[in-house]
Amino acid sequence: MTGPESALGTVRAVAFDVFGTTVDWRTGVAEQVSAVARRCGADLDGGAFADEWRAMYLPSMRRVNAGERPWAYLDTLHRESLDELLERHGVGAAFDDAARAELVRAWHRLPAWDDAAEGLARLRGKYVVAALSNGGFALLTSLVKAAGLPFDCILSAELARRYKPDPQPYLTAAQLLDVAPGELLMVAAHGWDLAGARGAGLPTAFVARPAEKGPAGAADRAEDVPSDVAAANFTDLARQLGCP
Amino acid sequence: MTGPESALGTVRAVAFDVFGTTVDWRTGVAEQVSAVARRCGADLDGGAFADEWRAMYLPSMRRVNAGERPWAYLDTLHRESLDELLERHGVGAAFDDAARAELVRAWHRLPAWDDAAEGLARLRGKYVVAALSNGGFALLTSLVKAAGLPFDCILSAELARRYKPDPQPYLTAAQLLDVAPGELLMVAAHGWDLAGARGAGLPTAFVARPAEKGPAGAADRAEDVPSDVAAANFTDLARQLGCP
Repeated sequence: MTGPESALGTVRAVAFDVFGTTVDWRTGVAEQVSAVARRCGADLDGGAFADEWRAMYLPSMRRVNAGERPWAYLDTLHRESLDELLERHGVGAAFDDAARAELVRAWHRLPAWDDAAEGLARLRGKYVVAALSNGGFALLTSLVKAAGLPFDCILSAELARRYKPDPQPYLTAAQLLDVAPGELLMVAAHGWDLAGARGAGLPTAFVARPAEKGPAGAADRAEDVPSDVAAANFTDLARQLGCP
Repeated sequence: MTGPESALGTVRAVAFDVFGTTVDWRTGVAEQVSAVARRCGADLDGGAFADEWRAMYLPSMRRVNAGERPWAYLDTLHRESLDELLERHGVGAAFDDAARAELVRAWHRLPAWDDAAEGLARLRGKYVVAALSNGGFALLTSLVKAAGLPFDCILSAELARRYKPDPQPYLTAAQLLDVAPGELLMVAAHGWDLAGARGAGLPTAFVARPAEKGPAGAADRAEDVPSDVAAANFTDLARQLGCP
């Protein structure tokens, strides 16, 4: 990790990953899985199920980026993973199409981490702040609205029809914001996302979200993730970027 | 004009035109033209110049939509029109490249109409509210941020690489918001924009902006523009759409 000043002096806009970095997907999805399962008369541990579901996320996107299948929305990938997972748990019969659709929509409404809105509001005074997620544009618009997050604009891998960590979503984001890749800081709690951004020429900020994967999960740690700046949360990031 | 209830009962999202409908381009551009001209030692009537500049807007976009030239950003079209206009006024020598670039950027920072932020805030409680303009994504993001307008997201003709009133920008907007064209209400102060939206299957709302084209200009009037609903301003539109 180099000093913040070196790579960050030219930053004009800041792009934030959403799932895990800005919002707490695990708590949100676990609660909604538990509620729907209870209603359907199935016995499922919401937290464990959320973890298994999320674990299928990167492999499902990898197949799109590898060209093994055409572009498919995150909602579609989530639904396919869900169908597979319910069968694996032997509870497929309990969940009809409406219940499955409701579960896929759990990813559209998730609680923000406590520091997110405040940190974004501070950074917004100096930078253009954008959401940049693998979630679809409509999903992100709903999510950001429901969570009351003050982003200046929504960007999505959908606009590039390639998923992060492919370089294209990062480059499309910079192009749409009319900045050079080196002027767009990518913020994420995941090493794989920051590695993709760095490969596309973006400076990177790691934000620790130790609770992201639950009590038993192994969230990425700053010491293992190369980045231009590492922060404890969004308000700490704002402070380090000169927005106290 | 049919009653609001008929076409509007299924509306889930509202897209707003920006130049003229949400912001007062004429006042903003006129002031900035006057200021830059004064500094460059040229004698220009800011208001009249703004009118002439804006009059070149539709023809310049028509050439893109007709396939007579490849996709070009609104900034590029504005610059070409500006260069031509300065020559026409015989003041080309007074404006160097930096002054011209500054004038093109006048379109990035314009004052909102008084009722815009309040009306959007009310509508936002019930609908997803989006900006949908021929301005580029970065231009719109800057403009909306500087004017403090509470849009849920920014959409732009740039995402379709076709300008309104071509059907594609309206259809791309609906697709990105994950709604059917009939569920996306297009709001504009211009008959040509609403005609384009209607052609793409969107319901339409006309908002009167009588001062848009200045004291001598002929702004579009509700009685001449077919639409599903006509409103005096954004707060009146909010009231008519059930967001008092």
